[in-house]
Amino acid sequence: MSNGSGAEDDVSEASPLFSAADFTPFDPTQELIFPPELVSLTKGQRSGSLRFHGDRVAWLQPDSLDEFLRLKWENPDARVVVGNTETQFVAAFKQSPRREDDISTVTAAMSVTFTPGTNVVEDLRLSYGGMAATTVLAKKTASRLLGRCWGEELLQEACSSLAGEMTLDPSVPGGMVTYRRTLTLSLFYKFYLMVLLKLRKQGVTVEQVGADCLSAAEIYHPETPSSVQIYQAVPEGRSQDDTVGRPMMHLSALKQATGEAVYCDDVPLYENELYLALVTSSRAHAKILSIDTSAAESMPGVVSCVLADDIPGSNATGPIEYDESVLAQGQVTCVGHIIGAVVADTQLHAQRAAKAVRVQYEELQPIVTIQEAIAAQSFYQPIRTIQRGDLEAGFKQADHILEGEMHIGGQEHFYLETNVSLAVPGEEDGEMELFVSTQSASKTQSLVAKALGVPANRVVVRVKRMGGGFGGKESRTTVLSTVVAVAANKLKRPVRCMLDRDEDMLITGGRHPFYGKYKVVGFLSSGKVVALDVSYYSNVGNSMDLSLSVMERALFHMENSYSVANIRGRGFLCRTNLPSNTAFRGFGGPQGMMIAENWISDVAQSLGRSAEEVRRLNLYVEGEPTPYNQILDRFTLDRCWDECLLRSGYQERRAAIDLYNRQNRWTKRGLAIVPTKFGISFTAVFLNQAGALLHIYTDGSVLLTHGGTEMGQGLHTKMVQVASRVLGIPCSKIHILETSTNTVPNTSPTAASASSDLNGAAVQNACEILMKRLEPYKSKNPKGSWEDWVKAAYFDRVNLSANGFYKTPDLGYDFESNSGRAFNYFTYGVACSEVEIDCLTGAHKNLSTTIVMDVGHSLNPAIDIGQVEGAFMQGLGLFTLEELHYSPQGVLLTRGPGSYKIPAFGDIPTKLTVSLLRDAPNDKAIFASKAVGEPPLFLAASVFYAIKDAISAARAQSGITGPFRLDSPASAERIRNACSDRFTELCPPAEPGTFTPWSVRV
Amino acid sequence: MSNGSGAEDDVSEASPLFSAADFTPFDPTQELIFPPELVSLTKGQRSGSLRFHGDRVAWLQPDSLDEFLRLKWENPDARVVVGNTETQFVAAFKQSPRREDDISTVTAAMSVTFTPGTNVVEDLRLSYGGMAATTVLAKKTASRLLGRCWGEELLQEACSSLAGEMTLDPSVPGGMVTYRRTLTLSLFYKFYLMVLLKLRKQGVTVEQVGADCLSAAEIYHPETPSSVQIYQAVPEGRSQDDTVGRPMMHLSALKQATGEAVYCDDVPLYENELYLALVTSSRAHAKILSIDTSAAESMPGVVSCVLADDIPGSNATGPIEYDESVLAQGQVTCVGHIIGAVVADTQLHAQRAAKAVRVQYEELQPIVTIQEAIAAQSFYQPIRTIQRGDLEAGFKQADHILEGEMHIGGQEHFYLETNVSLAVPGEEDGEMELFVSTQSASKTQSLVAKALGVPANRVVVRVKRMGGGFGGKESRTTVLSTVVAVAANKLKRPVRCMLDRDEDMLITGGRHPFYGKYKVVGFLSSGKVVALDVSYYSNVGNSMDLSLSVMERALFHMENSYSVANIRGRGFLCRTNLPSNTAFRGFGGPQGMMIAENWISDVAQSLGRSAEEVRRLNLYVEGEPTPYNQILDRFTLDRCWDECLLRSGYQERRAAIDLYNRQNRWTKRGLAIVPTKFGISFTAVFLNQAGALLHIYTDGSVLLTHGGTEMGQGLHTKMVQVASRVLGIPCSKIHILETSTNTVPNTSPTAASASSDLNGAAVQNACEILMKRLEPYKSKNPKGSWEDWVKAAYFDRVNLSANGFYKTPDLGYDFESNSGRAFNYFTYGVACSEVEIDCLTGAHKNLSTTIVMDVGHSLNPAIDIGQVEGAFMQGLGLFTLEELHYSPQGVLLTRGPGSYKIPAFGDIPTKLTVSLLRDAPNDKAIFASKAVGEPPLFLAASVFYAIKDAISAARAQSGITGPFRLDSPASAERIRNACSDRFTELCPPAEPGTFTPWSVRV
Repeated sequence: MSNGSGAEDDVSEASPLFSAADFTPFDPTQELIFPPELVSLTKGQRSGSLRFHGDRVAWLQPDSLDEFLRLKWENPDARVVVGNTETQFVAAFKQSPRREDDISTVTAAMSVTFTPGTNVVEDLRLSYGGMAATTVLAKKTASRLLGRCWGEELLQEACSSLAGEMTLDPSVPGGMVTYRRTLTLSLFYKFYLMVLLKLRKQGVTVEQVGADCLSAAEIYHPETPSSVQIYQAVPEGRSQDDTVGRPMMHLSALKQATGEAVYCDDVPLYENELYLALVTSSRAHAKILSIDTSAAESMPGVVSCVLADDIPGSNATGPIEYDESVLAQGQVTCVGHIIGAVVADTQLHAQRAAKAVRVQYEELQPIVTIQEAIAAQSFYQPIRTIQRGDLEAGFKQADHILEGEMHIGGQEHFYLETNVSLAVPGEEDGEMELFVSTQSASKTQSLVAKALGVPANRVVVRVKRMGGGFGGKESRTTVLSTVVAVAANKLKRPVRCMLDRDEDMLITGGRHPFYGKYKVVGFLSSGKVVALDVSYYSNVGNSMDLSLSVMERALFHMENSYSVANIRGRGFLCRTNLPSNTAFRGFGGPQGMMIAENWISDVAQSLGRSAEEVRRLNLYVEGEPTPYNQILDRFTLDRCWDECLLRSGYQERRAAIDLYNRQNRWTKRGLAIVPTKFGISFTAVFLNQAGALLHIYTDGSVLLTHGGTEMGQGLHTKMVQVASRVLGIPCSKIHILETSTNTVPNTSPTAASASSDLNGAAVQNACEILMKRLEPYKSKNPKGSWEDWVKAAYFDRVNLSANGFYKTPDLGYDFESNSGRAFNYFTYGVACSEVEIDCLTGAHKNLSTTIVMDVGHSLNPAIDIGQVEGAFMQGLGLFTLEELHYSPQGVLLTRGPGSYKIPAFGDIPTKLTVSLLRDAPNDKAIFASKAVGEPPLFLAASVFYAIKDAISAARAQSGITGPFRLDSPASAERIRNACSDRFTELCPPAEPGTFTPWSVRV
Repeated sequence: MSNGSGAEDDVSEASPLFSAADFTPFDPTQELIFPPELVSLTKGQRSGSLRFHGDRVAWLQPDSLDEFLRLKWENPDARVVVGNTETQFVAAFKQSPRREDDISTVTAAMSVTFTPGTNVVEDLRLSYGGMAATTVLAKKTASRLLGRCWGEELLQEACSSLAGEMTLDPSVPGGMVTYRRTLTLSLFYKFYLMVLLKLRKQGVTVEQVGADCLSAAEIYHPETPSSVQIYQAVPEGRSQDDTVGRPMMHLSALKQATGEAVYCDDVPLYENELYLALVTSSRAHAKILSIDTSAAESMPGVVSCVLADDIPGSNATGPIEYDESVLAQGQVTCVGHIIGAVVADTQLHAQRAAKAVRVQYEELQPIVTIQEAIAAQSFYQPIRTIQRGDLEAGFKQADHILEGEMHIGGQEHFYLETNVSLAVPGEEDGEMELFVSTQSASKTQSLVAKALGVPANRVVVRVKRMGGGFGGKESRTTVLSTVVAVAANKLKRPVRCMLDRDEDMLITGGRHPFYGKYKVVGFLSSGKVVALDVSYYSNVGNSMDLSLSVMERALFHMENSYSVANIRGRGFLCRTNLPSNTAFRGFGGPQGMMIAENWISDVAQSLGRSAEEVRRLNLYVEGEPTPYNQILDRFTLDRCWDECLLRSGYQERRAAIDLYNRQNRWTKRGLAIVPTKFGISFTAVFLNQAGALLHIYTDGSVLLTHGGTEMGQGLHTKMVQVASRVLGIPCSKIHILETSTNTVPNTSPTAASASSDLNGAAVQNACEILMKRLEPYKSKNPKGSWEDWVKAAYFDRVNLSANGFYKTPDLGYDFESNSGRAFNYFTYGVACSEVEIDCLTGAHKNLSTTIVMDVGHSLNPAIDIGQVEGAFMQGLGLFTLEELHYSPQGVLLTRGPGSYKIPAFGDIPTKLTVSLLRDAPNDKAIFASKAVGEPPLFLAASVFYAIKDAISAARAQSGITGPFRLDSPASAERIRNACSDRFTELCPPAEPGTFTPWSVRV
């Protein structure tokens, strides 16, 4: 029962949806999100009526006839909104990029009234949201259909009429023009089917709805997901104190759940502390003509503005090349380029004043997309190549040749904790203490020192933990921390800044968008690939950052897990006017492998063979060399593959899917099994080192410090386990306080999945040194306690502090000679995923995923499986959901959770099984374990290729076969558009170049 | 020109002395000090008049006759105050414990007017300050002398009359009853002489003043001191980068001079920080009946009161024995015993509220003095003994036997920076970070952990620098830091407390008062001492603290530098109701040696022989054993002795003094040369260890951390020099940030003079480890820079962090068997001092001191000589100036700089020469250096014995010869009282036991 606003007085007891006051002051960069969960919470357990009270309307849902009659009597003018009555049929549809917590792409509410007992349309209302600034009615179409019978003819008429009526300007905000137009038809078709079914149920004579179309009339209700974790138990009889291999809970888990865990911004405020807000460029490429801070400086609370001239040391900065500036001077090269900062007493004052800084620009032509960069040959040097075998001979040998291309979109890190820095100047000798949420304490230290013009030994960086990093805090944190340090140095007062989400998304870059083009893939009729020539283009942005290494890793993974005798991969770094892209879990590897999976599935498709068979046929075997001449030994991928086939019930599933697809026209299921092989090591050899510092205090308690940082991944927990085993004491006696540059220097960033390997070995080293020193006291008093031995050693003046170190041996790949070991070892995994797509809307369901992962002897199965699940879901976001939209002028349009969608609960596969491969010790890393952080991410490609498999089935039903292009992410839009059918034919896209799109694919 | 208050309007242009408003709110525990330096600043360079404006009076001092006449015209009622006019003679005298910046003991202003042309007294006014609550006139005496002639007869009459008139109650506040009474006579005698001289100059016929009395009529004007520093230059050709052995300036010297140096209380305030004020006992010994915090808790700003129940861990605490409580429970055992604390938003609020906490006591009988403890046999166990040789045989062999005793007063550390702690709770896992001004970071850490009931690995203690320590921050800092930590833990907010000076003096203890009794010293007629039996009694206070070790060190130094074949020393630890006494530079050694110097000078005196000869005769020679059976090798004391004799011109000086003393009755000069031998090592063997942590960052800058703390002594400077030499880089590349328990654990306190030895060797160890690692890169690129090598090593993954360690070898004295090496080596020194005493007032002048010190090859002569000078002056305070006064009920009466006097500029010897012994390498410590912190302190005994020598001359003139007792310090009171003469005879002391004295000698 919906009341017009006039009836508000009558429903005073209704609960307001929310109070507008609670949300002021309204931040225009943030979107208000109404969580539908609040509504669905009551589902299935509702007793009593529901009342919601919005600004203009109140909804009252009676629970009984009595209540309905009472309400109608109390609100005689209220409209009655009901399900289908005998003559009126109403339905509403919402299609959004993500099922939960998202604003719609297109909504539709449709109502049809028939002449009683007939299928003759007496009244028809088709209203659409998302097709104009406000909800619109398709009046022309509706009036055209009045008096017509509800049937195939009407449907065709409706569709062609709607296609003509529900148009969109090709430049319309929000984009997705073809998709949105198609949706108006698709949703009507769904309505058409639903009404048809209802009419038939009422006994009205209408056309029969085919059994294959029934599923199109159903509304998705995701099932509650369930998951299974399988890992190997530790051998019986092992001491309970030795937690290595046991699923010990993350040491901060409880604190993080209760909110007690301390993050950088929880460092108590200093009394004289100031807050900093950044001033950033609004232009992608421009000369700076002037910067006027006078208005800002006169605003309340403002203490100072900081510009490039305030940098006492060097303005040149950057994690490897110094090709960036701390604060822009002369020109800006991306939107979000940091020009300056305003420092004030409060965050509000600083941010307000930052907006008042006036920058005059002279605009220059920006390069935004990879394609623009290719056209302009705007590349950073060098262009990397890995080549092995004889390409020409390979292609000669091939029975078939195909080519293809793919674009893989970027990804925002979306760590829960945005970038934050607190700089506390030390008042003498240029000393400064920084609290930073960073994966790279040492890089933070050296870049601050460089900007301040002091030696690194004056700067201490402390990191307790991060609220997520994902590579986004490997290098880009320094763009903030350095500015904060410059401000603190200028004002000699503590300065803090935590970026708002929109600032963080705007400024700090993300995963590189990639464009892959395999000019030629040569393969035999068996499906065996014998030659490959592939080129990668990454959208690097306005500075090098780590992009060369990212591209290198893409090339190192260009064959994924497939043996290709004759191969060449080249990597081009596109210099564009976007914020510099950076490390992101996988570090180019997923993009590299994604192209490989694309051509391997193309090969299968072009041969019409099972993709599983073709993949299996091409899989490496033990002892084969990679394109970079690394011999694969202790190769477990085949075992993972077999176990995954078995655990997923692949063959039965395949058969069931094929049956389902034959039986359903508008929903299709797809299946894919995808392997991954992830090389473990920093490809920059010198980074493969780690240090640790271990103190045993006289009470026997142990303070452990190592070079790695905790970002939620459980590194500290694992390190405590390692120390606990070597020292032979319970974990409770060991504490890790933080990571800091004055305890363990010159640390590599916590990255490349290798932090447990590297720091674990360094911790082991330190512990072994101390155990050796304690040995005499243990021998002398074998029945004594740990505390006894420690005390005896202390009084005997034994050094109870040790510095541990580790460097990975035998590394040193050389691109010139294509020789030397690039990786210490590989982590392997296989995933099999099943999905169902709604061909009409492009929505999909993740039905099932089975992962088998070789992480060696897991140090901690709870943490490792958490990493596998987390990485998989993050990959799932990358390949199916997350989309950054940029305007053609390089302005990021998606700056918050309202417009940028990471996976939600409903995106978790309904059945998710993770199994750690049994009996697979790794002789290359600590306690036979393997790195786990990044490798599983790519397994989400199984979902992508399952979707592609489902789309193929849909296309096949439209008579289209063979390879087709599907870019990543496989968003609802792309899925829908790829499922060519009678509806899509009615909504052809506008001719490219004839309009300026709302957003461009960068 | 002094105006009555009525003339204030007329002198409006005069500068006020100070504005009372500037000093409010007035803290009654602090004394206002008007620094006379401000006045004397203008001395010798004045041009123009001086104007001072007090509350009741203004002083105008004209510069010319014209100005005088103008002023007199403007202020016709103003009194003219001038020097002696023709008939009126005026003089003023002030006697105070210290010459500068001190309130007087007794002042006198005297005026006599004669019948013109005669010596007949027409008017006489004798006013005294310090003899009653206000200034008093000796009216009876004055009227008795009217009409009398100014001559010997009048003098005698005046003295006996004054002695009768100017009496003091034996319990009078301020004490020094005999001395103050004597001063009234002595000062009159000075006036008498001055007037006599003036009259004679005017041609009036009066008695001749003997030439030997002339100096008594002079007013002391200390000369500007000059000093000479002599040290060995480094060999020519040594690299300028190698600063070892060069007089490099203390690295913080400039910062400390400008005030930029950061101390603990300079740590910026946290926004939610609270301030703590202690609640301490006002009773020396009592049961606590109740503690009522209700009034305090209701006062403004108060957040919480902290009592024993708030301690989550253990209330038992103490640096070695846990015989103390963090907060008193049940009873208090000294005035100043910490009972609780009040935590409030500001210092003022906390301190006000702390005073409002009501504690009800049931008083118990306190033991305050050593003598009371001996009477009550109130001793801590054990009673230590060191014995060697055959005492009985020794005494048989002796030609003479004497006995004696001496009391050595305690000493307040008087570090410029009082105790301060800031505790910042970490919000998780019981973590806490403390900033503390302490010599002992590790002890602070472990006692905080104990009180909080957490392992030590949760507590980080950071020490940047101290504003002085002197042993006072070795263990007693924990009484504050632990309470602050308990409060911070209770409230989960940062809590800070810096003690006010009066609190610090009241609570934290000081140097142990000692009473030494040598029952028998046997010696030959040559002066050679052959047997000694000595007992030491120290006033330990209400807990053990470090007192056993202090006593042990006293015993280890009981023979100072003298070979005594048959010897026994025993040490008794007196348990008293004073705040626990603790470490203080010298650590019992000075007290031990002081007694030795007393008996050796007694031997000389009883034989009537030169003290120098007797000392020299008894000096150890190379290869002799100490009483604790340590063989003296590389013995340089004889070289020091000879050089000191030479540099001081001892023999000429002796002759000149003897002549002077023959020529002067009321001023006497004295001379003494005193050796010292100071054992270097912690006598608790396990403390002789040290650690260091060295990081080389990739820019080549070095961060050095070691276990020692910087308290102004220059340890960090020396450590940087050591690292600089071993690493072969300039000091500018090396930085020390702070001392902290999370970088170098289990550190021994910075104490026992051994911190350069211990930490220096640990630093050397760390540096050598790193140099070995860098060696291949130096060899490969010999022309490269330090930065080149570091970078190459880093990229080659060399561990650029090293943990260094050192423990002193071959230590392990055992009291049971009297065997094992107690010390690593000895630091030797000899000082010769000349003084002049004013027999009438007890004042003395330090004329000259020559010190020759063997500090091996000095690491830094500037710092070492600074240490020698500083230690000497601190010893000079101990032995001649500083006196803590306690009431018989154990209440400390001297709680600030107003009543407790450390040496001032005027106490520096007019000529001070410090020479570091040349060519004396020490093979036992870093770079052939020797420890220097404590050893020179005792050399101030040369001043004491020079004073005693001068007193002997005075006594001789009164016909008294032979040994006499002079307790330490040789204060003006004691000097005056020891110079028995016609004036002292008139003022006999009251019979002990017939009255309750104001203060007792504890």
